[in-house]
Amino acid sequence: MKRILLFTLLLAATFSASAQQALGPGSGIVSPEINPDNSVTFRLRAPKAVRVQVRGDFAPGVCEMTEGQGGVWTYTTAPLEGELYSYNFVVDGQRMLDPSNVHMNRDVATWTSIFTLSAKQGDKGWYYEVHDVPHGTVSHVWYDSPILGMKRRMTVYTPAGYEDNPKAKYPVFYLLHGSGGDEDAWSDLGRTAQIMDNLIAEGKAKPMIVVMPNGVYFNQAAPGAAINMFQPTMANSRSQSTEEVENSFPDIMKFIESHYHVAKGAANTAVGGLSMGGRQSCALSMRYPKTFGYVGLFSGVVELPGHEAAMDAVFAAKPRLYWIGVGKDDTNIRNNSIKLKEYCENKGYPVTYYESDGAHIWRNWRVYLTIFAQKLFK
Amino acid sequence: MKRILLFTLLLAATFSASAQQALGPGSGIVSPEINPDNSVTFRLRAPKAVRVQVRGDFAPGVCEMTEGQGGVWTYTTAPLEGELYSYNFVVDGQRMLDPSNVHMNRDVATWTSIFTLSAKQGDKGWYYEVHDVPHGTVSHVWYDSPILGMKRRMTVYTPAGYEDNPKAKYPVFYLLHGSGGDEDAWSDLGRTAQIMDNLIAEGKAKPMIVVMPNGVYFNQAAPGAAINMFQPTMANSRSQSTEEVENSFPDIMKFIESHYHVAKGAANTAVGGLSMGGRQSCALSMRYPKTFGYVGLFSGVVELPGHEAAMDAVFAAKPRLYWIGVGKDDTNIRNNSIKLKEYCENKGYPVTYYESDGAHIWRNWRVYLTIFAQKLFK
Repeated sequence: MKRILLFTLLLAATFSASAQQALGPGSGIVSPEINPDNSVTFRLRAPKAVRVQVRGDFAPGVCEMTEGQGGVWTYTTAPLEGELYSYNFVVDGQRMLDPSNVHMNRDVATWTSIFTLSAKQGDKGWYYEVHDVPHGTVSHVWYDSPILGMKRRMTVYTPAGYEDNPKAKYPVFYLLHGSGGDEDAWSDLGRTAQIMDNLIAEGKAKPMIVVMPNGVYFNQAAPGAAINMFQPTMANSRSQSTEEVENSFPDIMKFIESHYHVAKGAANTAVGGLSMGGRQSCALSMRYPKTFGYVGLFSGVVELPGHEAAMDAVFAAKPRLYWIGVGKDDTNIRNNSIKLKEYCENKGYPVTYYESDGAHIWRNWRVYLTIFAQKLFK
Repeated sequence: MKRILLFTLLLAATFSASAQQALGPGSGIVSPEINPDNSVTFRLRAPKAVRVQVRGDFAPGVCEMTEGQGGVWTYTTAPLEGELYSYNFVVDGQRMLDPSNVHMNRDVATWTSIFTLSAKQGDKGWYYEVHDVPHGTVSHVWYDSPILGMKRRMTVYTPAGYEDNPKAKYPVFYLLHGSGGDEDAWSDLGRTAQIMDNLIAEGKAKPMIVVMPNGVYFNQAAPGAAINMFQPTMANSRSQSTEEVENSFPDIMKFIESHYHVAKGAANTAVGGLSMGGRQSCALSMRYPKTFGYVGLFSGVVELPGHEAAMDAVFAAKPRLYWIGVGKDDTNIRNNSIKLKEYCENKGYPVTYYESDGAHIWRNWRVYLTIFAQKLFK
């Protein structure tokens, strides 16, 4: 005890004298604060500002904040349902993150402050939070892609117990991001590890390996993990990515099947993805119809004309699940998804179609993942 | 080709109609821009601002930016040496990150924009960048700590080739963070994976496993990976962390030695850490003098009085390396480090003492890691 006290005193003295680690805002500001009724209060100290607003997906438009004592601006929402929410402040027209909240995520090139709210067990927000359940491992691994001529990075989720059961063989779900995304998108924005941990702990999903590669063929890795510092954009993945990802997918599967203890075959292999990744999943199922027993298109950028024969080949291989999820307001993508669905229905091909509110947003893709993962490998 | 074109057009149409993925600033602003002479230009569009400044570790104090066309403020530094630099903007007194730069890191509760500059191969900045060398794996794993009564998260670096050589046994370096840090600190702020990849590729460091646990005994994990959303602070780790980490360290080593193919024994086991982690490393070497053959104190919060006998026991076990690194301006910590060094020298104990410029900063800790890692397991 004496020793601890000594060190404590020494630490206090030391840090007051020479600390140059960032000490955080140290302002005593709490933001966001989740209130007992599940309303949320945002706070920002900005004594020189004339106008401060908060913009987030908890409400449409921009919300005016009110200045109080000490130049602290506040805004309190209505009570909210369980969800992962995104927001930012606008200070005299300048967008900024919440300096009192370390939690944020990056979508393409934009960082946004976030918080999760769990109104009750089992709501959406609950699945995105960390609970006291067994946790899987999230690894950032590099594999060689001779087809693309480069080393590439991917994120791999292995479920709790994987390392302790080297003789068990696990099914694999290849999960693909959208245009402008990278191998961190599903684990960060998508909360994949949390969703999988919670579903598996509840017995609602089978333990599985989730492989999240980088789907932009000319990028090795996410910003910070790649050779050159770069600013990701949406545009840079529009052209060849689908075809190049189709071509090089064997490199990914070869790496996974040789480095993990994997149950092989279509009954144990799923592919799914959002937006561009949905398009890639659709194309991969056409290119390799006997490889994937489960296919998920999450707001997938798909079109049917010219691909009817390829769809026939997909269903000739009798996939266990062909799942299409799309938002009601995602007009073009919804129209094309419905055309795909109707073609299948007319042919007697079993497809599962799920329509949610909203459009082309991560809030939907987390839900689609939560639903789709429960249907796999059963 | 036709198919690619069709999908490209469809994507373009779709995104203009319904995209709600964040599209990035889309402003055409490039910031920071590294110029051919290794000066760096910062840019921020802030047409309504009266005063815009940039503050960073490339220069002392705050630098005034100049407004140009379209409300874009700029500042260009002098030519810089290779390094990882941190900076932020100050817009009419309000601190903000650079919205044109996705690269940032978090120290305790503060996010800061960053960039690396590699003036020439082998300079400091070069080691922090990703190069075309074999890359190790960075995993976020959970282990059970019965001693602390909770599941806890740690970050583990395994070197390139580890997975392909299951019969090879690798030495282990336990690398500990400072007060207010967590299991992400060394991999993010410390660029551990990049430093190790580059040193190993150059043949300057042995392939080794680097284990980065969470050294705050009552936190399970970093913000976002932990059960409760929380705002990390410096203060919360000042009291019991050293003793609790000493007590519970066997849980960490047991997990590593049972889940990785590890070369055991003091000759294959190192411990080192920064600030509070240096204190913990010092204490761990005293508690388990035969366990660690290599000990590194990076600006370690250490003191000698009352621990002379424990130091004698450490050196009775003949460590292969006892390394002390500290900054010239880190006054109290330097004074105590020198006292420790002088005690050892008077006793004839071999210690290696390294003094750098500066004080208690990550810039020094990355350098200490780069130096220390080259001396291990040889």
